[in-house]
Amino acid sequence: MNFTEFKNKWTSVIDEYLATHLKEDIDDKQISQIMSYSVMAGGKRLRPLLFLATINSLGKEIGPKEIQISCGIELIHTYSLIHDDLPAMDNDDYRRGMLTSHRKWGEAEAILAGDALLPLGIQWIAEGSNSIALVKIITAAIGANGMVGGQYLDIDSTNNQAVADNEKLIDRMEWLKTGCLIEACVEMGAVYAEADEQSKAKLLAFAKDFGRSYQIYDDLVDITETSQEAGKKTHKDQESGKNNTLTVLGVEKSRQELLRLTIHAKSTLVGLNGLILAGFLDLYQKVL
Amino acid sequence: MNFTEFKNKWTSVIDEYLATHLKEDIDDKQISQIMSYSVMAGGKRLRPLLFLATINSLGKEIGPKEIQISCGIELIHTYSLIHDDLPAMDNDDYRRGMLTSHRKWGEAEAILAGDALLPLGIQWIAEGSNSIALVKIITAAIGANGMVGGQYLDIDSTNNQAVADNEKLIDRMEWLKTGCLIEACVEMGAVYAEADEQSKAKLLAFAKDFGRSYQIYDDLVDITETSQEAGKKTHKDQESGKNNTLTVLGVEKSRQELLRLTIHAKSTLVGLNGLILAGFLDLYQKVL
Repeated sequence: MNFTEFKNKWTSVIDEYLATHLKEDIDDKQISQIMSYSVMAGGKRLRPLLFLATINSLGKEIGPKEIQISCGIELIHTYSLIHDDLPAMDNDDYRRGMLTSHRKWGEAEAILAGDALLPLGIQWIAEGSNSIALVKIITAAIGANGMVGGQYLDIDSTNNQAVADNEKLIDRMEWLKTGCLIEACVEMGAVYAEADEQSKAKLLAFAKDFGRSYQIYDDLVDITETSQEAGKKTHKDQESGKNNTLTVLGVEKSRQELLRLTIHAKSTLVGLNGLILAGFLDLYQKVL
Repeated sequence: MNFTEFKNKWTSVIDEYLATHLKEDIDDKQISQIMSYSVMAGGKRLRPLLFLATINSLGKEIGPKEIQISCGIELIHTYSLIHDDLPAMDNDDYRRGMLTSHRKWGEAEAILAGDALLPLGIQWIAEGSNSIALVKIITAAIGANGMVGGQYLDIDSTNNQAVADNEKLIDRMEWLKTGCLIEACVEMGAVYAEADEQSKAKLLAFAKDFGRSYQIYDDLVDITETSQEAGKKTHKDQESGKNNTLTVLGVEKSRQELLRLTIHAKSTLVGLNGLILAGFLDLYQKVL
């Protein structure tokens, strides 16, 4: 099976699991609907697929429990998007071509939908894996020393000229904001599928490159795509005073860095059954 | 050791653990400070003490791991307060005699401090207990079918006259909002200390009564205390159109219900080593 076949096969399974369980497992139908609205808004399911591709590379079968874990990751990712879009944060009206949660349902509702998705995501990871190690990995990745810490640095650095040339701080912010959760998908996969130390080290090296490159890719999409293509407001980072790798390096050097990371990421997979993982890097072709 | 001695002994240990680890374990000193501000604002540490009293009643020693679990619960409780106080929710300026998080640090900062405390709380519970069962209990208790679901019903029912006389719906809202987390403290304690089935059933019955009565107590405090005594704005539920047991039953019947629950809660402890747990009910004396 190649990357596209893998992606197509499991994306529909993930989508169905999410739709079914957000509907059936939540008592209150209104909050269930608000949570589902954002989760089912058509994400690429990149993070759950990355977890599944990691365990697949280690020869582990994918069944309902593995799907539950992967969907738990998607819930957490969705919570982070809902909160990032809030008026007090990035104040976005559209995401994936649809009104953002607070614009559609109200601000309190959006905050609470995020607050409900976060623990449900961890619950699904715990139930699917029965592994305390996975719970430790995910909670560390999304807290103050991970994703939320990155978002904090982001709001703290926006429109801050002192930060604009601080490449190291921007690297750290982008890693925490996006890289940590991506790395956690791969690390959880490696631990769950009981990878040997050597394979785990290679997978984590791949995750580091992929996580770092993904943020550069996302920034490049922001300036190279039209709003319609991206389903959200683009060219927004510059307008809103955001500092990122792109504003530090410029477009051409960012592309070069993305290409370098892509090549390096592929090299980390040598000796692994990493065909499908390598396929994730092809995503970047459209901005290279 | 009686309840007061137990409370005094462990409250200072809890406070020190929280202060030390929020400072030392979080890389970014600014977000660490914002998280600490609310956690160290002088809560009663009721929920961590309840967990510790439960394991104590089952003969389990209290050491650093048990303190870490109990403090994880307090982080989660604090996150819920920070988000409840937000402008889009209850819009409170003061809590425990201090400015609320968003009034002190800004709205984005308060949302993110909550978003960081939640996973850190689960992480501490996971690290302290190494128990996937405890992770499942806490995540279920604080999600859409628990605490956040209660908060959703609360904002949805505020100023809603159709709800004002719906005692059943108000009961459910109050149980989810407050009772679920209190029950989880006791259930986690029972599972962690490996209670036999009979003791566990008694403890859970106690937790149901205590959780239900605590919300009534909290509503009574709102009308019987002055703002200065309570450290936050009081008489606010009525002004803001909140529906709760008090607005349905009135003060006298609420007091009677609280007294009835207190007596019943004590009866559930018969046959257990429950002297300290029973002491929690004395908290209610000041409104009875």
